[in-house]
Amino acid sequence: MIPILFAMPGNERFALALDRALGCEIGRMEVRRFPDGESYVRMLSPVHGRDVILVCTLDRPDERIMQLYLAACTAREHGARRVGLVAPYLSYMRQDARFKEGEGVTSRHFARFVSDFCDWMVTVDPHLHRYRRLAEIYSIPTRNVHAASAIADWVRENVAHPLIIGPDAESEQWAGAVAKRVGCDCTVLTKTRYGDREVTVSSLCASSGGCTPVLVDDIASSARTLIAAVGRLHEAGLREPVCIAIHPVFAEDAYADLQAAGAGRIVSCNTIAHPSNAIDVSDAIAVAVADMLSASPTAH
Amino acid sequence: MIPILFAMPGNERFALALDRALGCEIGRMEVRRFPDGESYVRMLSPVHGRDVILVCTLDRPDERIMQLYLAACTAREHGARRVGLVAPYLSYMRQDARFKEGEGVTSRHFARFVSDFCDWMVTVDPHLHRYRRLAEIYSIPTRNVHAASAIADWVRENVAHPLIIGPDAESEQWAGAVAKRVGCDCTVLTKTRYGDREVTVSSLCASSGGCTPVLVDDIASSARTLIAAVGRLHEAGLREPVCIAIHPVFAEDAYADLQAAGAGRIVSCNTIAHPSNAIDVSDAIAVAVADMLSASPTAH
Repeated sequence: MIPILFAMPGNERFALALDRALGCEIGRMEVRRFPDGESYVRMLSPVHGRDVILVCTLDRPDERIMQLYLAACTAREHGARRVGLVAPYLSYMRQDARFKEGEGVTSRHFARFVSDFCDWMVTVDPHLHRYRRLAEIYSIPTRNVHAASAIADWVRENVAHPLIIGPDAESEQWAGAVAKRVGCDCTVLTKTRYGDREVTVSSLCASSGGCTPVLVDDIASSARTLIAAVGRLHEAGLREPVCIAIHPVFAEDAYADLQAAGAGRIVSCNTIAHPSNAIDVSDAIAVAVADMLSASPTAH
Repeated sequence: MIPILFAMPGNERFALALDRALGCEIGRMEVRRFPDGESYVRMLSPVHGRDVILVCTLDRPDERIMQLYLAACTAREHGARRVGLVAPYLSYMRQDARFKEGEGVTSRHFARFVSDFCDWMVTVDPHLHRYRRLAEIYSIPTRNVHAASAIADWVRENVAHPLIIGPDAESEQWAGAVAKRVGCDCTVLTKTRYGDREVTVSSLCASSGGCTPVLVDDIASSARTLIAAVGRLHEAGLREPVCIAIHPVFAEDAYADLQAAGAGRIVSCNTIAHPSNAIDVSDAIAVAVADMLSASPTAH
């Protein structure tokens, strides 16, 4: 039987794009919250003996996790063969160490929970900083889809003379991967030596006969890193940068603040539904999901 | 070492009452939500080698469960001997069957999750309808504390000539237990034969030389059951009833609706913080918690 894909609330559009690329069936599921704050889940399409794919991006995770858990359990209760999770944005990756005594390494705890109720997971560029691989904390098979190719395609089509800039040291991996695929220069602003770096950026731009700076970061949450970088580039006399975020979390007023800070165009991947979405990663995700589905099922 | 008790957000007052009855230590813990919707947990008191008690009532469970889970994991990460949960109100008990094809029996799934991260649980009068005991769905030791004694004490002190009334068949267990302890009459309004029952209620009241009807139900969520009962008693010519809810969930406008429907005094147990709280169940909970703590620890 062909796999069946369910969109958790808010993921309907992405699930449609993924289904087009994957060629499976979109299932119908009723998910709602009672007035008392409990959730209700009902599978309206048959799942018995089938591979079930739940599509649920995990920004604002605390509001979503219970419904996701109950949907996975309900699919299993009704005889699903395997239950996989497509989480284009994966939360809780930034608390990857104990920064202060008494803190919890919540990335591990979150991973343990998801590994308990899912059989596999596909995500896009998780914030791997102190961990090198998801397998260090996730005990289920996972695939890490890279957005760099899709971002590079967008840059090539939309930006003349791009100079890719990572706004801080942590962003080097994403910025570097994009620049390599675009075939253009890349530099990284470091927090401790901003002054020197601005000179580098200015001279790089001058040497390339004028350029459009393109800031690339993985997560725009408060967007403080991008906002600071926009300010530094402005002070260095560069033109308004294009800002690209893989994951447009944009908490509270972050999006408006980034616009107000002097960013040129702000674009993002569709890992989280947002007005800035311009780069589609569903094809890349579909490849990884197909890979997961072709693996032989393991006992859970 | 003496046990240490932590209040999850919103449970501070109840934790203080429980601590007074139990005589353990109140721990300090920082729990907050980042603007991006992830939660942060930090234990500010030492838990290594100690019995940890988390106090977290579970109304509006979807908003609370992730922080509770992360707090339990963080306590364990820091060497807690056992992590117990005091949930004066236990959610997800009403979906105890598959009422429509495709539904999930979410009570079982919720129980499985809580059983996975807690070593024991104490709760007050969970909605045991199709299940007889929590052990049918919870795999950890649990104690079910009954509010009937505390409610009966309150009725004896505050209501002259009470007639205890269960608003529907499901409420019979709570109403009957209270009436037995008060030593007064009890009747139950059944949905299918309201007419007959109203006659019974009226004649009971007449025979006792005038009475104050006291409606007793376990959960007041939408409060529709209580509101309908208030209406029927009014039609039967009885005076305004006292309404007692063990668990004052009061979703949306339910509390105001119940007041507007002609309820006399509305009182509740303090299993959920609410202006109607008048009946303290912390002493009864403390006895059950002490019982749990005296049991030998089991491997988790």
